[in-house]
Amino acid sequence: MRGVSLATPYLHIDLPQLRINVRRAADQAALVGVALRPHAKTHKSAEVARLQLAHGAVGLTVATVGEAEHFVRQGCRDVFIAFPVWVDEGRATRLRDLRDQADRLAIGVDSVESAGNAGRRLGHTGIEVLVEVDSGHHRTGVAPEQAGVVARAAQRAGLPVRGVFTFPGHGYGPGGSEAAAHDERTALETARDSIQQVGIEEPVLSGGSTPTLAASLTSRAATELRPGVYVFGDAQQWELGIFEPDDISLTVHATVVSHAGGRVVLDAGSKTLGADRAAYSSGYGRLLEHPEARIVTLSEHHAVVQMPGPRPALGSLVSVVPNHVCSAVNLADTFWVAEPGGLRAWPVGARGLHT
Amino acid sequence: MRGVSLATPYLHIDLPQLRINVRRAADQAALVGVALRPHAKTHKSAEVARLQLAHGAVGLTVATVGEAEHFVRQGCRDVFIAFPVWVDEGRATRLRDLRDQADRLAIGVDSVESAGNAGRRLGHTGIEVLVEVDSGHHRTGVAPEQAGVVARAAQRAGLPVRGVFTFPGHGYGPGGSEAAAHDERTALETARDSIQQVGIEEPVLSGGSTPTLAASLTSRAATELRPGVYVFGDAQQWELGIFEPDDISLTVHATVVSHAGGRVVLDAGSKTLGADRAAYSSGYGRLLEHPEARIVTLSEHHAVVQMPGPRPALGSLVSVVPNHVCSAVNLADTFWVAEPGGLRAWPVGARGLHT
Repeated sequence: MRGVSLATPYLHIDLPQLRINVRRAADQAALVGVALRPHAKTHKSAEVARLQLAHGAVGLTVATVGEAEHFVRQGCRDVFIAFPVWVDEGRATRLRDLRDQADRLAIGVDSVESAGNAGRRLGHTGIEVLVEVDSGHHRTGVAPEQAGVVARAAQRAGLPVRGVFTFPGHGYGPGGSEAAAHDERTALETARDSIQQVGIEEPVLSGGSTPTLAASLTSRAATELRPGVYVFGDAQQWELGIFEPDDISLTVHATVVSHAGGRVVLDAGSKTLGADRAAYSSGYGRLLEHPEARIVTLSEHHAVVQMPGPRPALGSLVSVVPNHVCSAVNLADTFWVAEPGGLRAWPVGARGLHT
Repeated sequence: MRGVSLATPYLHIDLPQLRINVRRAADQAALVGVALRPHAKTHKSAEVARLQLAHGAVGLTVATVGEAEHFVRQGCRDVFIAFPVWVDEGRATRLRDLRDQADRLAIGVDSVESAGNAGRRLGHTGIEVLVEVDSGHHRTGVAPEQAGVVARAAQRAGLPVRGVFTFPGHGYGPGGSEAAAHDERTALETARDSIQQVGIEEPVLSGGSTPTLAASLTSRAATELRPGVYVFGDAQQWELGIFEPDDISLTVHATVVSHAGGRVVLDAGSKTLGADRAAYSSGYGRLLEHPEARIVTLSEHHAVVQMPGPRPALGSLVSVVPNHVCSAVNLADTFWVAEPGGLRAWPVGARGLHT
């Protein structure tokens, strides 16, 4: 990448900061004896996964069978698909193949019916399940006190039950992380009691998200946590007060292309940053070098920035912190990683593996 | 695709309906003598582009140099990059190479400074420019009465000026299309007068978007229109009253994976549908078979649907109409096109070409 600078927009990784973020969470989890099974949907990268595993992660979490296939191919031997996978014939074949290549493989189930369906096609293959429980996010997952019923259905269908899992996604809100971590704890404890009644003595209790990570580590209710965003950070974590801007390791490098009407317009839009905008977000992303600036409108290939003070010149580079880093990563084929000699390309290898 | 059904979520194209949509706009434009230069950022597909060109499109519009490279490689000889490209050294090399492979190539400029910068690197190569003017969307583009000033700067820098262009994006709002088409007309007429004063006698006046298409064709102020979404339609067009549900040619096929808490949860989330949600949108997408249903929350891999009446069974398929089809296409590698013998794969060939 000498001579001609890289064309914008592109994803830029600050490798020393990424390493710090991975190590910090690993150290914190090790200190309290909680396992980390990071969610790889955030980074979709074998390089980042290896870093996590080298720092003691017990395995990876993924969202789809396709992501599981990718990371097993890349050498990760222990993968949990944290999703209530509906096991049709095609997915059953893929999961059985995957089981043969991995040391441990698990999927989520969240009803007696989905456990039975999975069991008909995957029973007695060694593929395990975790029962998803709803800790307050109200998406998927049974009520925690129903975990045992679903676990029993899975057992009867020939699926070993590893434990329960939940996603306290309602922690994504201002001041919401402590309460969500408390809900997570209550849900996991209730679910533990429920599945112990069907004979699962030492279940994995899997929780966690980046905003609730600190509180979940303190409470030690979960035996395993699955944060994803913590490796990079993003504008949501910044605005929730979970991340300091200095701790963010991934930005989108963009060029100022227009000063029309006194505005500052960048060449990074929703097709690079993602269109996510939470109710609490102050705009469509932040600028690392201009913390007072706000992206006030976003088109597919344009970001319109409002900022006090002098405007950056046409043609100058800025570092945009996307609102939701998982979405931005999912739109790119390549990370550009800053190293002493220049920029190195890391593939976003699991991008697009949505099935 | 026999025997095992295709894994969800995936993009499904109704080919007969796609052909109808392409032909209808082509016929309407031909009737009033307005040229169509469809925006290929919507479909990113050589197959769809060939259909448009076969129906009389004068060339393609694209958003990035990378998209231009793709479509020229695929045989389109006339491409306009409707974006105020900041021409650095790398992009200048790529654009000069592209000029050698195409019959006609043009880029947008929207300031004296960007015209001068482009001219320093691309002057006297035959690459043309169109001056972008702001017709009320307030993103990029100079005031229409300033078009001549920018055109003059481009001419002095050795860039032939083909005309002016505008994007009436403020037509994306309930009842907004007529007013935006009126603004477009006024802006193009003002800009025409302005650039005729610097000696450009018969400028191309390029406008258009899908919501404003009908009104722009009626007014005939534009000599060329650049709609994109019209080939597929989406939930935004549906809810704006521009598209009937029956005219929509692209849906995301998804599976019902959970009934947790009485909800209907699909396996298509923001990583497949896109996270776009306009102020006027009634949710995060619509269901073609269940027009009364609403996607009330969207995660990366989950859509939570609220619907009256009986819930579709676990494991059943539904057709989701994404809010903004350009975003959904940009997330996929493949279209699955329904044909009499089954499903055929069309590549989303220009996906990810954001630079």
